Amino acid sequence: MEYPSKLIEDAVNEVAKLPGIGKKTALRLVLHLIKENENRTLALTEALTKLRTQIKFCKTCFNISDDDECALCRSHRRDKSILCVVEESNDVMAIENTAQFLGVYHVLGGVISPINGIGPSDLKIDALLERIKKSVETKEVILALSPTMEGDTTAFYIHRKLKDLPIKVTSIARGVPVGGNLEYTDEITLGRSITGRVLFD
Amino acid sequence: MEYPSKLIEDAVNEVAKLPGIGKKTALRLVLHLIKENENRTLALTEALTKLRTQIKFCKTCFNISDDDECALCRSHRRDKSILCVVEESNDVMAIENTAQFLGVYHVLGGVISPINGIGPSDLKIDALLERIKKSVETKEVILALSPTMEGDTTAFYIHRKLKDLPIKVTSIARGVPVGGNLEYTDEITLGRSITGRVLFD
Repeated sequence: MEYPSKLIEDAVNEVAKLPGIGKKTALRLVLHLIKENENRTLALTEALTKLRTQIKFCKTCFNISDDDECALCRSHRRDKSILCVVEESNDVMAIENTAQFLGVYHVLGGVISPINGIGPSDLKIDALLERIKKSVETKEVILALSPTMEGDTTAFYIHRKLKDLPIKVTSIARGVPVGGNLEYTDEITLGRSITGRVLFD
Repeated sequence: MEYPSKLIEDAVNEVAKLPGIGKKTALRLVLHLIKENENRTLALTEALTKLRTQIKFCKTCFNISDDDECALCRSHRRDKSILCVVEESNDVMAIENTAQFLGVYHVLGGVISPINGIGPSDLKIDALLERIKKSVETKEVILALSPTMEGDTTAFYIHRKLKDLPIKVTSIARGVPVGGNLEYTDEITLGRSITGRVLFD
């Protein structure tokens, strides 16, 4: 596509580098910004610049934070004896939204994925082990990783590293989603929900 | 949703103001920027800021342009006797992509839409009439507006304004899309394609 302006072309190319946004969507967004008030664009770019240059990661759990230590780690209301291991910061937000977990988190920053060249040393796994060894409080580690091959590999790796320590290692339950229909559940999930059945109470 | 950082929250709110992007997508984009190199975000914000602050509109056709007059209006290869009226700059890009039109354009900046409070005076219709009256070259005006009620209203309005001038006013053809299937074409389009049938040659 030929653009009527170099400025448009540059902006479209930059926006189209974002995940899930192609050139057509990028053009639509860019033309939208042109039609709107200039302040809107400046507010957007300022928020993004500030975010990228000022964002910090919690020194304890590596979650995104405005300070050196995040609000969850600082809080006295959170149960420091239960540690929930997740891939990314958005997993923390998702679990916090359920209001079912009152412990603390540890953000790995990804999962082991040899195909993408990500090994254990690229993740915060060593920091996790050190954190657990240093703290006397930790009694349970919940592995809340994606039910994919990479997630399972990472969970297995962490479990092996932790198995000599006097702590309980658990994993989030896998099964048929609430509100889901048995008929439309894939075989592997349904199979796992049968082998992993629990007492009815 | 509660965000772990005010910076994230501000960025998500700004990104989610873009058309077709909700809070979840905005969060995904924002977290993507955090994971990537800082230069990527700065390149993005710079391209958008430059775009919004430096963009110009052609003084003749009101298309987006890097200069006071756009490349199409300046070109000696374009046939100035045929003028194609479109809603927005992206329509110019779309028609240019077909390589079937060698005239010049006039960008209205929208269509008449009483429901959105957009009247004829909010569009470049007066500028179009003035442009046609001033120029002796214009022989034909092609109305290439969306086949919607607003587009039809706008076309009708412009047609009425032009009908006393010695120029031909045409509209882009409406009918069954190339590659489309009669069975799946809506009744109105199919009906129009029958009443507006053309000689087979």
